[in-house]
Amino acid sequence: MTFTDTLAAAWQHNNSLLCVGLDPDPAKFPAHLKGKTDAIYEFCKSIADATADLVCCFKPQIAYFAAHRAEDQLEALIAHIHANCPGIPVILDAKRGDIGSTAEQYAVEIFERYRADAITVNPYMGKDSVDPYLAYPDKGVILLCRTSNPGGSDLQFLDVGGKKLYEHVAELVATKWNTTGQCALVVGATFPGEISRVREIVGNLPLLVPGIGAQGGDVEATVKAGRTANGAGLMINSSRAILYAGKDENYADAARRAAVETRDLINRYR
Amino acid sequence: MTFTDTLAAAWQHNNSLLCVGLDPDPAKFPAHLKGKTDAIYEFCKSIADATADLVCCFKPQIAYFAAHRAEDQLEALIAHIHANCPGIPVILDAKRGDIGSTAEQYAVEIFERYRADAITVNPYMGKDSVDPYLAYPDKGVILLCRTSNPGGSDLQFLDVGGKKLYEHVAELVATKWNTTGQCALVVGATFPGEISRVREIVGNLPLLVPGIGAQGGDVEATVKAGRTANGAGLMINSSRAILYAGKDENYADAARRAAVETRDLINRYR
Repeated sequence: MTFTDTLAAAWQHNNSLLCVGLDPDPAKFPAHLKGKTDAIYEFCKSIADATADLVCCFKPQIAYFAAHRAEDQLEALIAHIHANCPGIPVILDAKRGDIGSTAEQYAVEIFERYRADAITVNPYMGKDSVDPYLAYPDKGVILLCRTSNPGGSDLQFLDVGGKKLYEHVAELVATKWNTTGQCALVVGATFPGEISRVREIVGNLPLLVPGIGAQGGDVEATVKAGRTANGAGLMINSSRAILYAGKDENYADAARRAAVETRDLINRYR
Repeated sequence: MTFTDTLAAAWQHNNSLLCVGLDPDPAKFPAHLKGKTDAIYEFCKSIADATADLVCCFKPQIAYFAAHRAEDQLEALIAHIHANCPGIPVILDAKRGDIGSTAEQYAVEIFERYRADAITVNPYMGKDSVDPYLAYPDKGVILLCRTSNPGGSDLQFLDVGGKKLYEHVAELVATKWNTTGQCALVVGATFPGEISRVREIVGNLPLLVPGIGAQGGDVEATVKAGRTANGAGLMINSSRAILYAGKDENYADAARRAAVETRDLINRYR
C-alpha cells in the first residue's frame, strides 16, 4: 500500500488528523529513563504505543537522534512502529535536498535503512533533486512550502511574478512534480491564511502542518483553513506538547491524555 | 582559529583552491577493500593522506556514509584528518535546514559529534534556521545559492523584483546574514556567468564551487569568474574524478596524480 493510501486509511480508521512528532530530548526525559543506554528508543516507543490509536501518522525528527549517535535507536523505533502500530505511516522528518546522485544515497538511508514511509524534502534544488525519492513508488515525498518559523518569510514570502514563492512552490508541486500522487506539502500552522491559500492551489494534496502547541499555532483556524471537503487532508503535528505533557514515570499516560485532547480539539472543527 | 582563517591560510600554504569531495561509493572501491568492515574509512583516509598537501579543504558528503550505517567511520575519518592533515579544514556537506530548535540539534551533530569545521546549509527556511550554526563562532556556514544540478533553476532562477532568487540569496547572505564573517556560498561550476554575478554581489566571500569534473563544469571559466583580486576566494570541489581516478590497489597514488593535475590546472588561471 502506498503512503498516500495508508495515510487516507489512518485518517478514517483512527478518526484523527493528529501527527505525533517524535523529537526526543533526553534533557526533558523522566528521571527513571536518564542514563539508560536506550533511553531515546524507550521513550519514543512508549509514546508511540500509548498514542497509536489516536494518530494518523508518526513523525520522528532525525536531528534529535543524530545529535546523540542514536541512529540504531531510530531504526529500532521505526521497526517497532511498523510491527506494533499497523496502518500508521512513519514520516522521517529529515528535510533533505541535494543533487541526484547524492539524493539517491539519502533515499537509501531514509527508505531502505530506516524503512520510513515518507520523507520531508527541501525544494530549493528543484525537481531532479526530488526524483530519487519519487523513484520509490510506495513512498511519500513531503516538500517544504511555507514553514512555521519566523524566518520562513525571508525567502518564502518573496514576490515571484505576482505571487509569493511559497505559492509558486505549491503550484509547482501540485501541477508538475506530483505526477505519481506521492507528494504532500509542509505548511506551518502559524499562518492559517496561508494554509487556506495553499489549499486553494493544491486541491486535495495532503498537508503536513507543524506549529500548533509550543509554536503557538491555533487549532481551530488551522483546521478550518486546511481541511478538504471530506474533513481530512491534514497531518497536524504536535511534538513537545504531547511528548512532555508528563514529567514522571506516567509520562506515556500523560502523553495519551494530551493526544486525546488534541485529536478531539481538531475533530471539533472538521 | 576560525574556519575562514584556516581556509585562507590553507589557500596560501598549499597554494591550492582545490577541495577534495569525499563521496565514498563502495561499489566503486578497488577489489582489495571490498567486504572490509571499515572499507569506507580506509578508502577516504588513504585519499586524504595522499592529497592533504594539495588541497585547501576536504568535503565529506554525509549521505554516502549514512546510506551505509557508517556514521562511526565518518567520525573516525574527520578525527584522522584533524590529527594528520593539520591546517586543512573539513566541510561536512549535509545541506541541513530546519527551525531553530531542530537546527540546534543538527549543530550538535555536525560540530560537536563529527567535529566538522563548516557545514553546508539550505537557505529556504530563512535566517533563524541558520543562527544555531552561527552560534559556534569558529565554525563556517556555507549557504546554498546557485546549485550545479539541472533542476537548480526551478526556484533559483525565479525573478524576484528584477533579480534572480539566487542573486537575492547572495545579497541577503553578504549584507545581512554574514555579520560575523562566518558565511560562504555554494555556487555551481556549471554556470560560470552566474559565478561572476555572485562574485560581484558578495565581494570577497568564499565560494564553494562543485560541478567541475563529472558534472562537466569548465575549470578555466570557473576560476576566471570566481577568483578574488588576490587569486583566491574559491573552494573548487572535485569528488569522483579524483576518488576513482584509479581502480586497483594504487588508487591513492592515482588520486594524488589527479589532484596535482586539477590543482595545477586551477592555478594556471588564478
